[in-house]
Amino acid sequence: MTTARQQLLRVQNFNVSRDGFGAGENQSLERPFGDADPGTMFAWAGATAGWPNRTDPGGSRGLDDYFTRDFHNNIGAEIMGRNKFGPQRGPWQDHEWQGWWGDEPPFHTPVFVMTHHARPSFTLSDTTFHFTGGAGPAEVLARAKEAAQGKDVRLGGGAATIREFLDADLVDTLHVAVSPGIEIGSGSRLWKSPDELLDRFHLDVVPSPGGSVIHHLFWRK
Amino acid sequence: MTTARQQLLRVQNFNVSRDGFGAGENQSLERPFGDADPGTMFAWAGATAGWPNRTDPGGSRGLDDYFTRDFHNNIGAEIMGRNKFGPQRGPWQDHEWQGWWGDEPPFHTPVFVMTHHARPSFTLSDTTFHFTGGAGPAEVLARAKEAAQGKDVRLGGGAATIREFLDADLVDTLHVAVSPGIEIGSGSRLWKSPDELLDRFHLDVVPSPGGSVIHHLFWRK
Repeated sequence: MTTARQQLLRVQNFNVSRDGFGAGENQSLERPFGDADPGTMFAWAGATAGWPNRTDPGGSRGLDDYFTRDFHNNIGAEIMGRNKFGPQRGPWQDHEWQGWWGDEPPFHTPVFVMTHHARPSFTLSDTTFHFTGGAGPAEVLARAKEAAQGKDVRLGGGAATIREFLDADLVDTLHVAVSPGIEIGSGSRLWKSPDELLDRFHLDVVPSPGGSVIHHLFWRK
Repeated sequence: MTTARQQLLRVQNFNVSRDGFGAGENQSLERPFGDADPGTMFAWAGATAGWPNRTDPGGSRGLDDYFTRDFHNNIGAEIMGRNKFGPQRGPWQDHEWQGWWGDEPPFHTPVFVMTHHARPSFTLSDTTFHFTGGAGPAEVLARAKEAAQGKDVRLGGGAATIREFLDADLVDTLHVAVSPGIEIGSGSRLWKSPDELLDRFHLDVVPSPGGSVIHHLFWRK
């Protein structure tokens, strides 16, 4: 009775400041978000029961939890920008350092890292990292959809990678949590205003009852 | 790194009128909701892409869709009242009629039907209906959790069944969609006011941006 589901490309739980930045300047090994403070920006998510990195029981199960527990829901692969994998630029100097995500990355699916520079795939726990070797967004999405085996693909960020896929008109839904109390000023910017997407997307704006973020939910017209 | 998840008992997408009724009087084979009009009350859900009964593509993917697409998320079994299975009362007269849910019920898990009257289990597509033969809420929940194999259990309603499990303090989370424009007046009532649950539960109140319902999200204190 159910129709075959379309495979979507979904941005899930992406956080930006009031002025639309996902990260600040000066990204380094020690500061994946550069001059921005991820602890403050992600506090809403860390307080929920469904936060994928949670290691203790407890946490809220209200509205914010619907977003964090949807992170893995029907997701079969992730695409991320190179800067979400690590701070290196240019050709890979060595293959020993295996990214910011530790021995048990929170993805549990194939992950495609956008980079011009070839590198062999490797697996950590149940996450396999592939490196796209200069393929464009449409080709990478096709590979990720095949790897997802009928499930959706998560577009993990950062902001420049999301913009690249938006420019190619490949994104189906976006959940962006805007922190109204945080300004970053310069760095990696998603938008000047969410209104930039209204020509192509519907938008629900939903303040978190906790008050720390305003959820922006976009879906393709 | 992740802790073993607690198995929850969750009320998902339960609809009530402004005055707290889930169904009206005079339930019959033709009118599962009695004198209430389910088409109006469930319109918010039917408009979403994630509505489990949807047979055509399309539908909204904003806030309301987070609730409908969460319906099956990490659910391994359902418990429902007898009136959600069919309109019969008293001992089963025959076993030929197999409930309101058709040849492909939208549950896809074991379903435990609360009834004092024994009846053999049967399977339709990938849903198996079990009949509880007078077992109390705690015992039925234990059976459902075992059947759910580590996943959560959905408490499907109706209102009397939810109240029975609330009275036994067995419910962990509730999502109740209140239709502010609908009054039913008499029938199967969940509450006089959502405030009745505030001694035991946190509550997020979130108006749907579409405007037709107000989502009430409860989780145990």
